[in-house]
Amino acid sequence: MNDRAPRYSGVIPPVVTPLTEDGGIDRASLERLVGHLLDAGVTGLFVLGSSGETAYLTPDRQDEAVRIVTATAGGQVPVVVGAIETTTDRAVERGRAVTQLGADAVVATAPFYTRTDAAETERHFRQVAAALDLPLLAYDVPVCVHSKLDPDMLLALAADGVLAGVKDSSGDDGSFRRLALGARELPGFSVLTGHELVVDAMMLCGADGVVPGLGNVDPHGYVRLHEASLRGDWAAAKAEQDRLVALFDIVRAARPGTASATAAGLGAFKTALTLLGVIATNAVSAPMRRLDESETEAIAGCLERAGLAGVAPGS
Amino acid sequence: MNDRAPRYSGVIPPVVTPLTEDGGIDRASLERLVGHLLDAGVTGLFVLGSSGETAYLTPDRQDEAVRIVTATAGGQVPVVVGAIETTTDRAVERGRAVTQLGADAVVATAPFYTRTDAAETERHFRQVAAALDLPLLAYDVPVCVHSKLDPDMLLALAADGVLAGVKDSSGDDGSFRRLALGARELPGFSVLTGHELVVDAMMLCGADGVVPGLGNVDPHGYVRLHEASLRGDWAAAKAEQDRLVALFDIVRAARPGTASATAAGLGAFKTALTLLGVIATNAVSAPMRRLDESETEAIAGCLERAGLAGVAPGS
Amino acid sequence: MNDRAPRYSGVIPPVVTPLTEDGGIDRASLERLVGHLLDAGVTGLFVLGSSGETAYLTPDRQDEAVRIVTATAGGQVPVVVGAIETTTDRAVERGRAVTQLGADAVVATAPFYTRTDAAETERHFRQVAAALDLPLLAYDVPVCVHSKLDPDMLLALAADGVLAGVKDSSGDDGSFRRLALGARELPGFSVLTGHELVVDAMMLCGADGVVPGLGNVDPHGYVRLHEASLRGDWAAAKAEQDRLVALFDIVRAARPGTASATAAGLGAFKTALTLLGVIATNAVSAPMRRLDESETEAIAGCLERAGLAGVAPGS
Amino acid sequence: MNDRAPRYSGVIPPVVTPLTEDGGIDRASLERLVGHLLDAGVTGLFVLGSSGETAYLTPDRQDEAVRIVTATAGGQVPVVVGAIETTTDRAVERGRAVTQLGADAVVATAPFYTRTDAAETERHFRQVAAALDLPLLAYDVPVCVHSKLDPDMLLALAADGVLAGVKDSSGDDGSFRRLALGARELPGFSVLTGHELVVDAMMLCGADGVVPGLGNVDPHGYVRLHEASLRGDWAAAKAEQDRLVALFDIVRAARPGTASATAAGLGAFKTALTLLGVIATNAVSAPMRRLDESETEAIAGCLERAGLAGVAPGS
Repeated sequence: MNDRAPRYSGVIPPVVTPLTEDGGIDRASLERLVGHLLDAGVTGLFVLGSSGETAYLTPDRQDEAVRIVTATAGGQVPVVVGAIETTTDRAVERGRAVTQLGADAVVATAPFYTRTDAAETERHFRQVAAALDLPLLAYDVPVCVHSKLDPDMLLALAADGVLAGVKDSSGDDGSFRRLALGARELPGFSVLTGHELVVDAMMLCGADGVVPGLGNVDPHGYVRLHEASLRGDWAAAKAEQDRLVALFDIVRAARPGTASATAAGLGAFKTALTLLGVIATNAVSAPMRRLDESETEAIAGCLERAGLAGVAPGS
Repeated sequence: MNDRAPRYSGVIPPVVTPLTEDGGIDRASLERLVGHLLDAGVTGLFVLGSSGETAYLTPDRQDEAVRIVTATAGGQVPVVVGAIETTTDRAVERGRAVTQLGADAVVATAPFYTRTDAAETERHFRQVAAALDLPLLAYDVPVCVHSKLDPDMLLALAADGVLAGVKDSSGDDGSFRRLALGARELPGFSVLTGHELVVDAMMLCGADGVVPGLGNVDPHGYVRLHEASLRGDWAAAKAEQDRLVALFDIVRAARPGTASATAAGLGAFKTALTLLGVIATNAVSAPMRRLDESETEAIAGCLERAGLAGVAPGS
Repeated sequence: MNDRAPRYSGVIPPVVTPLTEDGGIDRASLERLVGHLLDAGVTGLFVLGSSGETAYLTPDRQDEAVRIVTATAGGQVPVVVGAIETTTDRAVERGRAVTQLGADAVVATAPFYTRTDAAETERHFRQVAAALDLPLLAYDVPVCVHSKLDPDMLLALAADGVLAGVKDSSGDDGSFRRLALGARELPGFSVLTGHELVVDAMMLCGADGVVPGLGNVDPHGYVRLHEASLRGDWAAAKAEQDRLVALFDIVRAARPGTASATAAGLGAFKTALTLLGVIATNAVSAPMRRLDESETEAIAGCLERAGLAGVAPGS
Repeated sequence: MNDRAPRYSGVIPPVVTPLTEDGGIDRASLERLVGHLLDAGVTGLFVLGSSGETAYLTPDRQDEAVRIVTATAGGQVPVVVGAIETTTDRAVERGRAVTQLGADAVVATAPFYTRTDAAETERHFRQVAAALDLPLLAYDVPVCVHSKLDPDMLLALAADGVLAGVKDSSGDDGSFRRLALGARELPGFSVLTGHELVVDAMMLCGADGVVPGLGNVDPHGYVRLHEASLRGDWAAAKAEQDRLVALFDIVRAARPGTASATAAGLGAFKTALTLLGVIATNAVSAPMRRLDESETEAIAGCLERAGLAGVAPGS
């Protein structure tokens, strides 16, 4: 893989979108978060992904988030932006909007809500790419869109210049391996995993980089993990990943049965960032509920055990 | 059920959205379609439902469709409009927009794309209703949103005045029966089925009305079916429904394996409406493909067999 | 449909399998249960269906249950027996075994556990039928086998003499309607619904009969419901069905989150039968848990409200 | 992980069950296959797994397969045998049967066909283990049983001595990582992956071994892969795995749309073994279809490309 030259590689966290108490975007917190990530050495920023609450934000709010991130990043790393919409025309509309706001690339999923098929999904990516002036990445996220992207289709779209990369959050390792093997002949095509708990393993399989939600909380850890993988120090990569897996226990802080998977996960990232002093509140979008004090304490415990600054709740 | 007085009842077709060859909304066709439906005696119009390609239309296009329908309907029947968006704030934004455009009620689904739970879904409906000045109906459509609305939750929301009705396209008859039985004590709450192939059966179970996609093509049939049910002439209702089930074969005209379920179904409705001279083209939104000539002929055959004007393709 | 002459029609309860405290089959209770059903006028008995705990019984236990039922029924009504096994050879083996034990017909599902496709499913039914000397019915139960039987395939197999009938527990009304319409030209083919909460509706759609789990508890009710449907008295059918829907609340007696759907449903049927004095215990097979005293009281309440003998727990 | 001492580790192929043309078990072929595997240095044999057509074999056939393998293996490596049945009593019955036939351990899945819950699944494993005299391994295979085993439950059962190991074919890497991390404190507990395309990655995550279907065809490759992993030579492990991923293309030889996933995969393994001269025919159980000549040629091509003896079809 020494001859790979993908445009997007390394650690590209899906930036969470800090909110104010009244539901608006918390500009100062988002700026601090971007600084926190850049300081750690991330190689890109993914705005308006699932972790960015993209599906919860109105178009205006989405635009605001993009504006803040592109302004704060100031060209230091590429800013990849989600145009996560049900179908082609809607994704194109959002893709064009974020192009105007300084995005470096656009990310789209397969159609959702509608019942689609493989041929439509392929046309969707081709038409979205054709309508935009930026590189397009495909986001494979069956847990959200309820269909899986075929690796052979992705490779064909890459070969045709339609796709610049893929973020694979499918959890289908066989498919991912196939993608990574196929990408050997597509040196510029970026194969990114969203699988934040097995980045060492996915790097071994041939990933170019990772888009870890948990990377909001511990970007240094993911940067170290990625670097260890790059230099072939798999024992170090594994040790770092194991530490991050333990840290990921923060997503289990929500009392069982009282929060959706999204609220528990996203809420944990935001709560941890609050404890670390990066963002101001752990507010999340409706209809999710916010994690409470006792859940916050559980998260503080995880942070301490993972060696992150032992910040007490409220301190 | 003689004492029921639901605000929305009878036949309320989910109006398809005719498109021009270049993908815009075909105003003249949409006006003719509304006339076609009103002439047949429908008791309401559901704009921007799944059959209305709501998930394929940008907000501007959605607004345009609503404007045309409300203007054409001119208050003759209620116009119920979908605010089908992934989460609360986005649904509220769309709900407010269509309120300004003359909608009489708003329809929302459970959150989708995100991973949600029952408590979030309940909060979602409460918050959407609280933010809008119009009655809210819930749309239960697991095939699109991948979660099922609990009938007990729906009844509780109805009792609290949050929901004015429900359109049930879940295909879960046990749940629907439970809803219909519970609605006996909620005389103003509308229990509508989206189950266009068993309207006789669902009326017998206690439905107040139906939202049939096929009702775009044969609104007279559904009006007759509904009226027969109301007067307890179940043999007539069944005969009419059986005829409509045969007509529904138009959705099987697309060559197997070459069209998604949405493209096949929606495409068939539009093609039939073209053959009937109601709308100008059978164009559908990207990334769907349009039905072709041989498929159109198959649909023409179904129309003839169902006793609809024997219009030849192209005539 | 006056010219229909299906071999299996009317009310054919899926007989539960009473167990002794130590997990054996309770012969006396099973004999009483069969008597209870025959007295009510059922037109057939379905042994070793899902409600009969077929998936929980070893082959020897299954044989014992069949022997008891066929002996007790003594030819008064047909005894239809499940050969519910993962694949063809295993289903044939069980089908042959129950043939020896006096079954009148065999019931098989699509293959399960394995990943199958439509062609294999069709071959499965053809090969099972060819290997047996008894009529074969297909059992369409996607909730258990995770695939749906195509109504066109079922009709083709019926036309070829492979299938004598189908028990549809798919909950797919469009498919069921299609089946019922297609069966008009197959007068001997039995279209049975397993949909115990909408029997009135399914009879209106063209069902020949019903296989209701709840029919173990209230066979008289289902017989009245079926008879009202047959004579076209849909108001009476609906009233009876509505009463039975209320009675079905017994399946909600298990404390939420403490029992699987099977344990809650099956356990409720057995508990109700215990309260009614028909069977001796509400024991269920491992790994299910048995309903306890407070749950039993809730079920007693449902029985009383539904007008069944107000038997107190323990009396 | 140097202090791990799991009883089952290394390469433990799920042995396919060769059949004769008339559907019986082909003893000579099965003996040769066991020899082929032992010669390659596998550390165990898993009989009656999914690849062994367990769900297709009657109990007598299952017994026959176990007898042949235990006799042929002659104690050289442990023979782990599936008792893959719908529920507890049935699994116990099969577990006892194979205990008599010389199995060294028993493998059971979660209940299937029935609707189960987590508490029942846990009781199931506890009761099966209690009823058997052999070590019990859990088989996590959601694609077959439609539920996922919770890693925390598995670890608790391991700590209680109920489970001696797990074969994870869930494809859920987060869960697998959790399991592997938890197993650090359970040195005797075997964490095996069924994920044959990412064994390098899963070994890096902490697996003790692998149960690869493809290991029937190329056991030497998996043994090399496992050994490279053990000595930390991840580059060699990856190269070997990449070669095996290419070889896995044999499962794509079945013409699309003409074979189920099971028939395509299992059929490919058997066809390859026929080409390699290990077994006599590629016959598969009903209702699967057997791969044909042109599909066989495609498989021969894959074998050649993967560096396996370039055996022509028919030679």
